[in-house]
Formats: sequence, C-alpha cells, structure tokens
Amino acid sequence: MQSSRGRLRVRELKLAFIGFGTVAQGCARHIVNNRQRLEQEHGFRCKVVAISDPAKGSLLNLNEGIDLEQALQHVNERKTLEDLNGKTGLCSTETIAASHADVLVEATWTNLENGEPGLSHIIAALEGGMDVATSNKGPIALAFKKLTNLAKSKGRQLRFESTVMSGTPLLNLREFCLSGSKIRALRGILNGTTNYILTEMGEGRSYSEALRRAQELGYAEADPSGDVEAHDPAAKITILANALMEADLDFKRVEKEGITRIEMKDVEKAIEDGRVLKLIASAHRNERGQVEASVKPTLLPETDTLAHVGGVMNALQISMDTQPDVTIIGPGAGGDSAGYGLLVDILTIHRMRLNAKLVE
Amino acid sequence: MQSSRGRLRVRELKLAFIGFGTVAQGCARHIVNNRQRLEQEHGFRCKVVAISDPAKGSLLNLNEGIDLEQALQHVNERKTLEDLNGKTGLCSTETIAASHADVLVEATWTNLENGEPGLSHIIAALEGGMDVATSNKGPIALAFKKLTNLAKSKGRQLRFESTVMSGTPLLNLREFCLSGSKIRALRGILNGTTNYILTEMGEGRSYSEALRRAQELGYAEADPSGDVEAHDPAAKITILANALMEADLDFKRVEKEGITRIEMKDVEKAIEDGRVLKLIASAHRNERGQVEASVKPTLLPETDTLAHVGGVMNALQISMDTQPDVTIIGPGAGGDSAGYGLLVDILTIHRMRLNAKLVE
Repeated sequence: MQSSRGRLRVRELKLAFIGFGTVAQGCARHIVNNRQRLEQEHGFRCKVVAISDPAKGSLLNLNEGIDLEQALQHVNERKTLEDLNGKTGLCSTETIAASHADVLVEATWTNLENGEPGLSHIIAALEGGMDVATSNKGPIALAFKKLTNLAKSKGRQLRFESTVMSGTPLLNLREFCLSGSKIRALRGILNGTTNYILTEMGEGRSYSEALRRAQELGYAEADPSGDVEAHDPAAKITILANALMEADLDFKRVEKEGITRIEMKDVEKAIEDGRVLKLIASAHRNERGQVEASVKPTLLPETDTLAHVGGVMNALQISMDTQPDVTIIGPGAGGDSAGYGLLVDILTIHRMRLNAKLVE
Repeated sequence: MQSSRGRLRVRELKLAFIGFGTVAQGCARHIVNNRQRLEQEHGFRCKVVAISDPAKGSLLNLNEGIDLEQALQHVNERKTLEDLNGKTGLCSTETIAASHADVLVEATWTNLENGEPGLSHIIAALEGGMDVATSNKGPIALAFKKLTNLAKSKGRQLRFESTVMSGTPLLNLREFCLSGSKIRALRGILNGTTNYILTEMGEGRSYSEALRRAQELGYAEADPSGDVEAHDPAAKITILANALMEADLDFKRVEKEGITRIEMKDVEKAIEDGRVLKLIASAHRNERGQVEASVKPTLLPETDTLAHVGGVMNALQISMDTQPDVTIIGPGAGGDSAGYGLLVDILTIHRMRLNAKLVE
C-alpha cells in the first residue's frame, strides 16, 4: 500500500503445483478469481508450468503454461488433467525437475511419520534453486531445521503460513507485524475438529454423537485419530515453537494428550464450575531458557479469551516482551482458507524476489 | 526470518523524534532495550539526531547523535533535554528541517480539529524527503488522501500502525499478511476507555462510578469527551476504512453515537436478554460499492467474539472475500504498546529502504 516505489512493474512467476487437492485448488481459485487485482496491486502474474497429483494426473507445459481455470474445471468434473494440453506421465519428482519453476507449491497430504512425499519434494525444489510455498505440516514439523538451513544455504525462501491455522496469519504476523520483539509464550486452539467436538459436548451432546456430527460435516476424517489423539495440534505447536520462538523441538517428543478420554461428566463439571474445557496447545520458555511445548485438555475460566473460541474456529495468543498479549482468531482449515495462506506465501515470495531481482 | 538474503548487512537510520511523551518514550525504551537483537535480526541500527518536545525541550545533535538512554533518564527525572549535549532552542519545524533525518518519528498530541501541529510536521518531513512513522491519529484521520498522495509523489513511506489499536497490528496485518484479498467489512472495539466503562457497568457499577474508576486508573482523561462521545473511535474507523478499504471518508461526517446516554437499565436489560452492550465501530460497502462507517452502542449476542472483549482491550474483525473472518484482539493504548507500533513501523521503513537502497 504505502510503497516507496512509484508504479509497480509486473513480473511473472512460474509455479509448479505438486498435489492438487482441496488446498491447492483453493489457491488456484483465488489466483483465477483475482488475476487483475493481483497484477494491479502487487505486480504479480503467474504461469503454471506444472501440476502433478497422484489421483488427478500429471501435466507439464513449459511454453504456454497450463490454463488454470480449465484445470480447475477438469478436476471439478473428475476428468484427468492428462486430457489437457502438455506433457503427461511424469512422476512428481520428475515433474519438479522438469518444471524449472520459480516456486514449488507443495500441497500433498500430511504424513507425520516421515514427512513423505512432501519432504522429498521440498528438498528437490530447494536443491534445484526454487522457492517453496507449502501447506504440508509433515515436512515442517519433522524437519524444520534441516529445511530452513537448506533454504538458507541455497539463498531460497521456504514459506509455510498455511501449515498452522490455514490462512489466518501467524508466521507472517510474527515476521512482518510483530518484528523486533521476543516471543515469550504461545497458547492456542490449533485443531478445529476437537474444538468442534468439545463445543458440541458443552451443548449436551456425547463424545460419540459429537464425533459423528463432525464426520458428517466433513470436519473429522473416517479415522479421526490424528485430531482426537492430538497428533495434529502437536505438529502445529512444534512448527510454531520452532519458527516463532527459535526452538529446536522434536515433534515426536512433544507431550500430548487428546480428548478421547473426556467424558460428559467432565464437561458438565467444568460448566458447573464456570469453566470451559478446551484442547490447548502451548509453548513457553522454562527457567533455563529452553522452549517446552505440550497439548492437553485444559479448564479455562470464562474470562479467558480462548474460552469463547467455539466450533471449528482456531486461535493463538502470543505473549511477547514489548507489549501485552495479542490474540488472533480465525479459520483453521478449509480449502479456501488454506489456499489463501498459500497465495499470501506466493505473494510474499514474489515481493522478496522483486526486491532481490533489483539488485542483479 | 526466512530471508532470501544470506547475512544481513547493518545500516544506520537517522531518527528525529518530534513529541517525546509516553508513546515516543515507549518506542525509545524498546530501541534501547533491544539494541543487540535489532542489529542481529534486522540489520537495524539508529542514530537519534533530534528530539523536540514543547514540555521537555529541544535538542539537535547531528554528529554524535543523542544518547537515547540518557534522554529517557533525563525525562524520567523531569529534567529538560536541553541540559544534554547538542544544539538547543529550535522549534519543532526548525528541528525537522535541521535534522536531515531519514525518518521523522511524529508523536505529538492528537488534534481532531485540524490535525496540528502533527499535520505540518508530517508534511514538512515528506516534503524534505524523509520517511514518517507516526502514532498521531489527527493528521491521518483528517488528511489521509493528501498525506498518502504526498508520500507517493515524493517516493517516501508514511506509516501509522500505532494510530489504531496501538501496537496490535492492523495496517501491517493487511499489507503483509492479508494481501491479495478484498476487505468487505470491518467491525471492532476501538476505544479502551468506553469498553472499560461498559465492562464495569456490566458488573453493576453506574456510568459515573465506572468513569471515575477509569479516570483514577489513567484510562480516561479529565475531560473524557473524546472517548465517551466517540470522537476517538470515529477517527480510528475512518483511518481503517480509508487505509484498508480504499475509501475516501471524511472523519467529521462519520456517523457516531457515544455512551453518555447509556443507563444502568440499558445494561441490565441487555444482560437479561443474554446480550452484551458494546461500542462498535464498523465499516462496510453499501450496494453501490461505497464504504460507509459508523460508531454506535450495539447489542451483541453471547456467541459474538467481540462480546467477550472486556476492559481496556480492543479488537477488530476483518471480513474479506478470500476466507472466513479473522479477528485480532490486543492492547489499544499505552506507551509500551503504541511505542512498539512505532518501532515496527520504523523497522518496516528500514527494511523497505534497505531493499530500495540496493537498487541505486
């Protein structure tokens, strides 16, 4: 907005989408819907040189680029992308190498065991001199130090805003809006499914009834263990502690307790005591200055801002040394929101490249 | 954090503080306390070449710069700055001209009648080729278009994060974290004094009792009309609508109603109905696409996030076209927080200058 530059020059960024599910499609829709605004306000134009998805096919078109609107329509109609104009049949790693893209948009599924295949995709892209925007929690939760060091050594950007609270800004918030401060502690509701279940239980529904509703509404998966056993929020607080508090936490060693053992009587007792039961993820510095993180069901007083974050909403309270706490509340999932987080990362990469480009 | 540059080079920025009250001192304290971190993490170093304040004296020292720690101590001990080493006796306008600063830090008192003296200070600085960081609502609420156009024509930055919700990010949030979206509506609690009074009334205290407590705690001024008659939140929603929604609102024509006519029975009735009475500032686009803004007491349902923002806390809910609403809650006043907002603006100016510098 208040730019020191006069008129923006427009630059084109070559994107390769690896993984083209809900989140990547959300991002693609935002690009298609806002093409003119992105060009006028941000000098941003893009050419999609590759899309690769195990279920939807693989397509490479270096010259004309892939028509993103057509690709979205194809996927919407459950047609394979391989019907479209371009080279087909490459695997994801071959696609990354052949794409010569400026930015890898990595949006494959989250794997919290070993981070694959996203981890290999990100490494291949950084090694190949690409910037990376990813919504994939696995690689960032499991290999933060390795990946950020690799990005640094290659002079490349690795952005992952949408890995935590989707398009609700946390990582960019810290980097651009809460700069110059030291983060003392983080405390949040980082999983929408469990927050929905606990909110429903607060309204008198049993755990299994609430879980079934969450599944019907698409908030919970058929196997809900990643959420209800707190693997997902544990991965997220690991990412936040490492990225915002310069910690070096191992995701698998973060203390976690899910909500599977919570019974109706626990929720009723909380209400009787004027409290609200929430699954709270938190990180703080201990006396030795080391960062500790955990996820566990916690009783909050009614006066706590987080006590009033209901349904699938997520929230993070940030404590710093420069001013009182700031809390941000917003969506924590969904293709539109996570796809928007990816778009903001792509725009940030674009802005930084534009600045760097000027030096050459 | 994830910078595409390798090691940061350190650059020194020359600052001139015009107005050295609570907010400017808060900013100065953050700079003094975090000198090393700002240099290591942001490549930021500063030399304070001038401080001018009608009550604390005026000081200019172009060569060695002013010792900020000493200046803070002097002011703390109610000594005049003119005891310190440097040239004294200049008025604020002379100081700006003589300072040859890179950045004017404008933190004089808010004047919602004609914006002075801040307005003239900002114009003089921009005309003289300086960037500006200001916490002064008056000039921005009254002359947004004029000042932003001037800044643009001079290729300079005008930043004013701390004019609304002090150090809680709103303007930077939009620019760097919610970019590429269109803001549809804003809705918030932008005045801590009135929110404190309404919160106290909700707990059974009368308006006059609550106001007296607010005055005792330093939340309300001896003449509280700027707050309770809603001039302050009207100025803030004007700034937000103009800066975040590309509106062109005239502050003096924004519809406003304060809390002076609210009686205990209104608050009691709200509670009986399961509602909460809040002074809500809002802006939205009407059917013709024009932005309308207002400030008025509003009954909120218990399910509304803003209903639970109590005491002196402020909050803003941002509705956009790309994802569900995001709400940010944080401090809305205070030297530490507003001073931190100024620091973030100075760091942003520094980052942008660093980028622009590379081009030359």
